[in-house]
Amino acid sequence: MRGHIFHYEDLYDFTKRIMLRLDALPDDAHLIADNLVTSNLRGIDSHGVGQLKLYVSGVQSGFIVPRAHPEIIKENSSLAKVDANNGFGQVSGAFSMKLAIKKAIESGIGVVTTSHSNHYGFAAYYAMMALEQDLLGITMTNSPPLLLPTFGKNAMLGSNPIAMAVPCGQDQSWVLDMATSVVPLSKIDLFSRRNEQLPNGWATDENGATTNDPLQVVRNLPGHDIKGGIHPLGGEGELYGGHKGYGLSMMVDILSGILSSANYGPDVSFFSNGQFQFANIGHFFMAIDPSFFMAIDEFTGRLDDLIARLHNSEKALSQTRIYVHGEKEAEEYKRRVKEGVPLDEATVANLKQYSRDFGVDLKLE
Amino acid sequence: MRGHIFHYEDLYDFTKRIMLRLDALPDDAHLIADNLVTSNLRGIDSHGVGQLKLYVSGVQSGFIVPRAHPEIIKENSSLAKVDANNGFGQVSGAFSMKLAIKKAIESGIGVVTTSHSNHYGFAAYYAMMALEQDLLGITMTNSPPLLLPTFGKNAMLGSNPIAMAVPCGQDQSWVLDMATSVVPLSKIDLFSRRNEQLPNGWATDENGATTNDPLQVVRNLPGHDIKGGIHPLGGEGELYGGHKGYGLSMMVDILSGILSSANYGPDVSFFSNGQFQFANIGHFFMAIDPSFFMAIDEFTGRLDDLIARLHNSEKALSQTRIYVHGEKEAEEYKRRVKEGVPLDEATVANLKQYSRDFGVDLKLE
Repeated sequence: MRGHIFHYEDLYDFTKRIMLRLDALPDDAHLIADNLVTSNLRGIDSHGVGQLKLYVSGVQSGFIVPRAHPEIIKENSSLAKVDANNGFGQVSGAFSMKLAIKKAIESGIGVVTTSHSNHYGFAAYYAMMALEQDLLGITMTNSPPLLLPTFGKNAMLGSNPIAMAVPCGQDQSWVLDMATSVVPLSKIDLFSRRNEQLPNGWATDENGATTNDPLQVVRNLPGHDIKGGIHPLGGEGELYGGHKGYGLSMMVDILSGILSSANYGPDVSFFSNGQFQFANIGHFFMAIDPSFFMAIDEFTGRLDDLIARLHNSEKALSQTRIYVHGEKEAEEYKRRVKEGVPLDEATVANLKQYSRDFGVDLKLE
Repeated sequence: MRGHIFHYEDLYDFTKRIMLRLDALPDDAHLIADNLVTSNLRGIDSHGVGQLKLYVSGVQSGFIVPRAHPEIIKENSSLAKVDANNGFGQVSGAFSMKLAIKKAIESGIGVVTTSHSNHYGFAAYYAMMALEQDLLGITMTNSPPLLLPTFGKNAMLGSNPIAMAVPCGQDQSWVLDMATSVVPLSKIDLFSRRNEQLPNGWATDENGATTNDPLQVVRNLPGHDIKGGIHPLGGEGELYGGHKGYGLSMMVDILSGILSSANYGPDVSFFSNGQFQFANIGHFFMAIDPSFFMAIDEFTGRLDDLIARLHNSEKALSQTRIYVHGEKEAEEYKRRVKEGVPLDEATVANLKQYSRDFGVDLKLE
């Protein structure tokens, strides 16, 4: 079985039908499919339809509750605390971000924390929801442990990503979406699927030594007894700022996990002692209205100017282009809408399995 | 002339008197001295009294206005826009953070942006002001260009630090204070003063090649025609996540510079074409009240638990201790309050010069 190129609408349709078979409500199935396929369209295959398996196994084991809906526990004009009731991460993610946006429109800023959630997929999706209203959007989430604290032997924090979307006048906006580890686990997975060795300085094994074997990292991380892990952004020790990546991961866990009443640190896990459990993942959402500070055209014009100056500044040796964040992804989005979404062999095999298991056609052109 | 150990109260007193001679108001002179000496006490000598020269030259050249006071341009229950009127950075920094804290007490969250400011010294100082009210404090500032965008040859963004302080039950709080470059310029300065070579992968020269010569970096950066620079956190290229450090630096400039109406990117500078100018630095301040989300004791207890688990987790090879952010600094603070603040030869020479120039005694025990 080989990789294959899919039309994005077929992938969306397939994913939505699988979610409906898993008892998701139609609007929720749409959200999940849209979140995953948008990630594939932007070239972030690590957070695309390959993540379906997390949701299938979560629902089948009873630890994602498909029709659970998020509830507002407490709110004021700018803040809200949301409980996701163990539903799909995309459902509470979109609900919570909409709430932050509504508050930002009314009061200039909205901050929402969300507990008892699950994997919410492609983080920038929520940050980018703010763009439709000319707002700045930020989201963070904690995630299962994989990150080594500086001078530590075993993973204690998640890849804990930070995503931010900022409106600007160009056809693509400025969109950052980054794990606070050197690389996310999905990148290690990718090396494993391709049978490639990891570069030095990404990850350690169960003895604390650098490892180049992606399978060893993947094998050591899930479940209760986590060994080794991935270095924080900045790498091992303090020489290149590894303590900063560790600090950013903590910042994300404080805002997403601790402040929301979710699990935090090593407790953020779909597994405990080899058993599934409610992951109780925590998220953080923020929207800010730049038009409080200046006319929106002035704001986007200032950002456009900075971006143009970055684009036009002198290139490093043997480099031809300076990118800004979200630019590669916006170009890939346009390309893949036209030319299709290529998926690797392992992902296609997984989708074919679900096609048989759930009796949902997978359209292979 | 050699380095020397000072009693912190003498350093405070000296700094305050110098600022009074520069026509600062007594409360403002106190703030500046307290900010700088607190940095020295916490062991962050890069942002201590050695920065006095920035303020002396700024005032003497007329581009820091010593009695200028910050003004609120616009505010609502959670947001404010402040104009620092080209006064001391510490004055608008403390003013703006107090305003964010007041709003957080009243509405749960306060966000303040500040334009037309100057170097505000030790960033965590403002974030830590929130701790007195059991709030989370965050501040960011843009700064003169030194950071290479990924694939770029010349510095286009600042070290653009992020500082965050979070209350917890232990005697020290959790305090992050990090440049988004691999290292701040002050660290390059330190290597230069000690006549040491830079590690590979920190900085590039005017030809875009890695340089180990700190003097070359320091010489290339100030002024209009900036050449080479310091890599973003994550290093050169994308293999170890350098694009993430570049993204964080952009995030800080968007929130601090673009959103505040300050200068941004390469325009953040005390110099242009070899002339002093108003730097028009921009800051961002945020305070969040965790007691909106849960009882404060529950919040601090959760953070204490995460910290304890980090402390107790297994150590990497040949390591004996896992730190959390702010812990080393809190211990250094206690030590230096008792044992004094050691300053290096160049800084002592600088203080002695000011002692003569301004007729202010420098107490050498």
